[in-house]
Amino acid sequence: MRQALDPAALAEQVVAGSRAHVARALTLVESSRPDHRAQARELLTLLRPHTGSAVRVGISGVPGAGKSTFINAMGVRLIERGHNVAVLAVDPSSTRSGGSVLGDRTRMSDLAMTDHAFIRPSPTGNHLGGVARATREGMLIMEAAGFDTIIVETVGVGQSEVAVAGMVDTFLLLMVARTGDQLQGIKRGILELADVITVSKADGDNQGEARVTARELKIAMRLIKSDSEHPTPVLTCSSYTGDGLDEVWQAVLDHRATLASEGELDVRRAEQQRDWMWALVMDELTTSLRRSPRVKAITKDLEAAVSRGELSAVEASGQILDAFRADF
Amino acid sequence: MRQALDPAALAEQVVAGSRAHVARALTLVESSRPDHRAQARELLTLLRPHTGSAVRVGISGVPGAGKSTFINAMGVRLIERGHNVAVLAVDPSSTRSGGSVLGDRTRMSDLAMTDHAFIRPSPTGNHLGGVARATREGMLIMEAAGFDTIIVETVGVGQSEVAVAGMVDTFLLLMVARTGDQLQGIKRGILELADVITVSKADGDNQGEARVTARELKIAMRLIKSDSEHPTPVLTCSSYTGDGLDEVWQAVLDHRATLASEGELDVRRAEQQRDWMWALVMDELTTSLRRSPRVKAITKDLEAAVSRGELSAVEASGQILDAFRADF
Repeated sequence: MRQALDPAALAEQVVAGSRAHVARALTLVESSRPDHRAQARELLTLLRPHTGSAVRVGISGVPGAGKSTFINAMGVRLIERGHNVAVLAVDPSSTRSGGSVLGDRTRMSDLAMTDHAFIRPSPTGNHLGGVARATREGMLIMEAAGFDTIIVETVGVGQSEVAVAGMVDTFLLLMVARTGDQLQGIKRGILELADVITVSKADGDNQGEARVTARELKIAMRLIKSDSEHPTPVLTCSSYTGDGLDEVWQAVLDHRATLASEGELDVRRAEQQRDWMWALVMDELTTSLRRSPRVKAITKDLEAAVSRGELSAVEASGQILDAFRADF
Repeated sequence: MRQALDPAALAEQVVAGSRAHVARALTLVESSRPDHRAQARELLTLLRPHTGSAVRVGISGVPGAGKSTFINAMGVRLIERGHNVAVLAVDPSSTRSGGSVLGDRTRMSDLAMTDHAFIRPSPTGNHLGGVARATREGMLIMEAAGFDTIIVETVGVGQSEVAVAGMVDTFLLLMVARTGDQLQGIKRGILELADVITVSKADGDNQGEARVTARELKIAMRLIKSDSEHPTPVLTCSSYTGDGLDEVWQAVLDHRATLASEGELDVRRAEQQRDWMWALVMDELTTSLRRSPRVKAITKDLEAAVSRGELSAVEASGQILDAFRADF
């Protein structure tokens, strides 16, 4: 980010597919600096005509479900069939020094070596809004650069799933073979988001238990999504043997095709755009507040006075808002 | 809220303990109308010298743990010993027509009949921030009105626990007798918040299983809070027979006394005040945005244009921010 940045030139290079410029564009949208945000907005406006046609898939699963290995194996298959695959991540807990998602690139070594794939770890940041915004904008950059398959990975533990479901066409959930009561440990809220489920590591001695788990999940999904016309496909696969991988991807494409044929894909994407609009507004407000010089100037004293009980939180918040108002 | 409201007169009546005025003050802080917010801020500033000495306890538990029955039984005991008990709730899913928390007042019929208790159902609202703000402010009104014990109830299913833990001294978790794998269904994040745990409904045939559950929870808590000096007390009780209720309350008071003796109570409350200050700022920003006439005037057209793909979310969000800037 040292050189002066020309959004028009950058957009041109991104559309031409220059990997170096894609990386640079991604770094740009990951920044929350006001001048970077202005450039990012200009860049995204220029890239917009080149976006929208990719298959957007969210992938989540509990730790240990083998997400990275699955994405590597699936990505290789897609590339063999002529696709270009981009892998992004949303993990608000990640740090630059090594996040939990996509942190271990060795598990995606096959994808990391080819020009037909681009792997980008989760942007860092302690609030989900900013991380999700950067990933969503990164997705558009990847599409404009010619990647026709976008995979957004996330950890299976919370609000990031909701954020990712809000930016993809199909949400794929990876499960491990566990049955009965143990299934209760999985958050119902995350199961509700799933469009396709696969039980991973279905190889060797695991195959029987994986099939039983899939059967139980099918029943659970029927209860959870009882109002849905389409039963959620629950499959098994192995990233190691490759068994079932094609069927899983077919289920993903079928889900998307069904959405499209019913006009639901456009509805879903329109809704995502509206949600994104408001998310951008809130993210910008939060960032402006954090960066406001007048707010910064009084924060320390106000927090101290509030801590000592000399000033109420109600009065202090009023002073912060007044300071912000003068800067906003 | 029909009559013109004088915060000074209202504050005086609240401090004098007038139930009608307490109710009116609660209704005031539940409103997000700008003029009501201004009055509420004035009221809270006036009440502040009369707050801070009450015992503040958060109570949560899975549905079916018998929270309302427990609060009723415990409240009656406290009143018999000369205390005045206020019960508030945080439940973002509740609606005026009957929320899930405190909705069924028949389970608190003993408390509902006495002047030594005041039960207030959860304020309605679809965003947790606003609901939590109103409850926190309601807590201060109750304290100023002379209630020395404040119980804040919440449902055991999500972010509201974090909000409630952020406004009380001690967080009490009610569990039902279940063992082994079934314990895994409880969110670890909620267990982490617990300062005291009790297995409820420990009567009749349930006693044995309740004791086993308590033992398992004790082990689980040792793992979860392995860095804590004080082991989390895990008890059993029955709201029906009354067995164990005194011990549970003693554990709550002991927890608070330990905090106080180590200076941690002041630290915790100071931290809560700072968090609350920022929560108030964000809540006010969100409310102002939603109420901005200029934003309202363009929202419909912008959402339609974004939905049709004629305008990008990035551009539209910029227009919303410009409109808000002019109104803020």
